[in-house]
Amino acid sequence: MFKFEILHQDRKTKARLGKIKTDHGEIETPAFVAVGTAASVKSLTPQEISQTGTQVFFVNTFHLHFRPGEKVIKKLGGVHKFMNWNGPIISDSGGFQVFSLAREKEANLVKISDRGVEFRSPWDGTKDFLTPEKSIAIQKDLGTDIILCLDDCTPYPVTKKQAEKSLARTHRWAQESLKAYQKLKSKQALYGVVQGSVFKDLRIASVKFVSSLPFAGIAIGGVSVGESKKEMKKVLDWVVPLLPENKPRHLLGVGEIDDIFTLVKAGVDTFDCVMPTRLGRMGYILIKSQNSNVKCQNFTYEITKTKFAEDKRPLDPQCDCYVCQNFTRAYICHLFRSKELLAYRLATYHNLYFVNKLVERIRQAIRENSLESLEKEFLQK
Amino acid sequence: MFKFEILHQDRKTKARLGKIKTDHGEIETPAFVAVGTAASVKSLTPQEISQTGTQVFFVNTFHLHFRPGEKVIKKLGGVHKFMNWNGPIISDSGGFQVFSLAREKEANLVKISDRGVEFRSPWDGTKDFLTPEKSIAIQKDLGTDIILCLDDCTPYPVTKKQAEKSLARTHRWAQESLKAYQKLKSKQALYGVVQGSVFKDLRIASVKFVSSLPFAGIAIGGVSVGESKKEMKKVLDWVVPLLPENKPRHLLGVGEIDDIFTLVKAGVDTFDCVMPTRLGRMGYILIKSQNSNVKCQNFTYEITKTKFAEDKRPLDPQCDCYVCQNFTRAYICHLFRSKELLAYRLATYHNLYFVNKLVERIRQAIRENSLESLEKEFLQK
Repeated sequence: MFKFEILHQDRKTKARLGKIKTDHGEIETPAFVAVGTAASVKSLTPQEISQTGTQVFFVNTFHLHFRPGEKVIKKLGGVHKFMNWNGPIISDSGGFQVFSLAREKEANLVKISDRGVEFRSPWDGTKDFLTPEKSIAIQKDLGTDIILCLDDCTPYPVTKKQAEKSLARTHRWAQESLKAYQKLKSKQALYGVVQGSVFKDLRIASVKFVSSLPFAGIAIGGVSVGESKKEMKKVLDWVVPLLPENKPRHLLGVGEIDDIFTLVKAGVDTFDCVMPTRLGRMGYILIKSQNSNVKCQNFTYEITKTKFAEDKRPLDPQCDCYVCQNFTRAYICHLFRSKELLAYRLATYHNLYFVNKLVERIRQAIRENSLESLEKEFLQK
Repeated sequence: MFKFEILHQDRKTKARLGKIKTDHGEIETPAFVAVGTAASVKSLTPQEISQTGTQVFFVNTFHLHFRPGEKVIKKLGGVHKFMNWNGPIISDSGGFQVFSLAREKEANLVKISDRGVEFRSPWDGTKDFLTPEKSIAIQKDLGTDIILCLDDCTPYPVTKKQAEKSLARTHRWAQESLKAYQKLKSKQALYGVVQGSVFKDLRIASVKFVSSLPFAGIAIGGVSVGESKKEMKKVLDWVVPLLPENKPRHLLGVGEIDDIFTLVKAGVDTFDCVMPTRLGRMGYILIKSQNSNVKCQNFTYEITKTKFAEDKRPLDPQCDCYVCQNFTRAYICHLFRSKELLAYRLATYHNLYFVNKLVERIRQAIRENSLESLEKEFLQK
C-alpha cells in the first residue's frame, strides 16, 4: 500500500502539507528523512529514533548488500523485522556509493557501462556488478517501503556533453528498473530519479521523461554534490513545476538547516541528509542562532570547546528533548573529550530532535499559512 | 548518612543479606557494583543503568582528577548532578591506576615513597603527586557516597619481604586518610583497605589493623591481580571471619560469574568488576551455560561468530531484558561486524542486566536459605 495525499497547499509558496501512507505507517510531509546506513541510525535504538520525531529513514543498499547481505535480511523477515523498526523505511539504489568509489581512490576498480557498474567490495575486494535489475531485486529482498531506481550519478563540475551522456544512461536505467520492478511484482513504492546536473534543458528533459513513467514518486538527484545553495534553488525551480502534483517528491542528500526552508518552499515533500547525525558524532550541536548566547555557524556549535567545560545549561535551553532535559553542556563536553560512547548518542539524539522539531513547525506553519514568518523568525532574516 | 543493616544471615555459609543506606538511596546486598570510570557506565544513560538493575557503580578518581578535574565537578554540584545519576556512587582512591602505570611502560615516570606517589598524567604529561590526603580531598570534591583510602597495591607475584613493606605503607596511609577525612569533615562513608597479598599472617595482621580503625566499611584489595580463584577463596577465608560483623565488606575488582557464588558465600557484601561491561563492548555475551544450545566459556559466547549471523533468537532466550525482548542475535552480530555504536550499548545493557539478575536471585536465595541449591543449579555442579 502506498498513497500520497495533499492536505494543504501554501498560498504564497509551492510548499505543501501532505501525508504518505505506507504498509508501515504514515509520513507527514514535509518530512526530514534520517540516514540509517547499515540498518541502524547510528547509536540509537528504534525506540529513540521514534522519540526524536523521526518518521522515516534511509538504509543504504550498498552497505546492506555486503553486510549482512540482502538474502540474510530476507530470511530474517526483511529490514523492518531485522532492526525492529515498524515505521516506514526508504532504501537507495546503491548507486551513489558505487559512483563515489569511482571518483575516489578506488577509481580503477570501477567500470561503468550502459549495462551497469562493475566494482569491487571495499570490504573484501569481491567483484560485483550492480545493474538496475539487481538493485531492484536487492531492494525487494530488503523489503523497504520506498525504493529507488539506479541512476548514473553525474559528477560535478561536468561538461554539457558528459551530462547529456550520463542523463541518457539514467533514463535508460529508469526504464530497466521499472521493467524489473514489474517483473518481480514488487509491492514497494518505486521512485524515479531526475538528473541533468545544472543544465536547465537537461533538467527539463529529465523531469518530463521521468514524470511520464508510472513511478510512485519522484526523487531529485545530483543536487547534493558540489553545487552551491543557489544552484539547488535554481534546479528546484526548473524541476518542481513540471512534476506531477499528485506524486511525492524526494530531494536526495540535502537538508542542512538553511536549505530546509528553501527546499520546502520549492515544493519538496521529503529530503534526507546525514548532517544531524554525522555532525552530532563529531561534537557539533544544532541550535537556533539566537538561543542562549552561543556563537553559531550554520546553526551548530562545537560542544568540545573549553568554554562549555563548566556550562550548566542544556545543549539547547529552548529544547525539550530527553538530552536537554537531563544533561548539561559540561557533562556532554566531558563525554566527548573522554571519548565516551554516550557522547555520540546524546548529540545524535538532540540533533535529530532539533531537525524534526523544525520540520514539525514548518508543517504547522504551512497549515496556518505562516511559513514565511516562521522562516523570518528562524533564519533571522 | 550511611547505615548498614544485616537482614538475614545464611544458615550454611557466611553469606548475608543486607542493606546499605546512603544519602542517594539504598543498596540491597549482596550487590554487584558496576564500573563507570569517567562518570559514565560506558554507552548507557543513567536511566538505562538503573533499568539493568544496577544499584551502584564505581567512578575512578584517577580519571576524573584529570578529566574534567574534581574542581569542575564540584562546581557543577558533585558527580551525581554532573552525570544525572541519583543513586549511590563509590569512588576509588586513584591508587590502582597509578600503581598500574608504575608496573607498565610508564614505570620510569612513577616514583613511590611513603608520602605518596609521584607520576605524570598519561594524557598530557603533567606532573602530579597522589597522597592519602589528596585522594580524600579529591573524593570529597567528587561528592561520592562511599570513598576509599589510598593503599599501596602490592604487585603479584611478590616476595614476603616486599609484601610486608607494602602492607606497612598501606596501613600508614590508612591512618593518614582517616586523619585527612576527619580534618575535612567529610560526611562520606570512608572504607579502609585490607591488603597482605597471599600471606596468611600479613592478611590477618591487616584485617586486625584496618578493623581497629573507625572506618564505615572495609574493602579487600589485592585479590584481583594475578591470583588464582583458589587463592581468592583462601584470602577471603582468612580475612572475613576477622572483620567486624556490622560493617559492609567490599571486594575490589572481582566479579566474574563463577567468582560470585564464592565471594558471596565467603561473606562479601559488595564487589565490583569491569567484566560485564568490557566483555560486552568486545562482543562477548553473558548467558547461562545450559541455555539455548550455545557453547559457552565462562558464561560467555562471542556474538560476532558466523553461526549467529542468521540466528533469530535473542541474545539469551531466558532473559527478559529490553535487549532480549527487542533484538535478535543476527541483528546484534551484524551491528558488531559493522562496528555500529548500537552494538556496544545492547551488549553492555544485556550483560549488566544478566549479572544484576543473578545477584538478585542470590539475594532471594539467601532470604530463603537456598543459596547452595541456586549455586548448584546455576553452576551446574
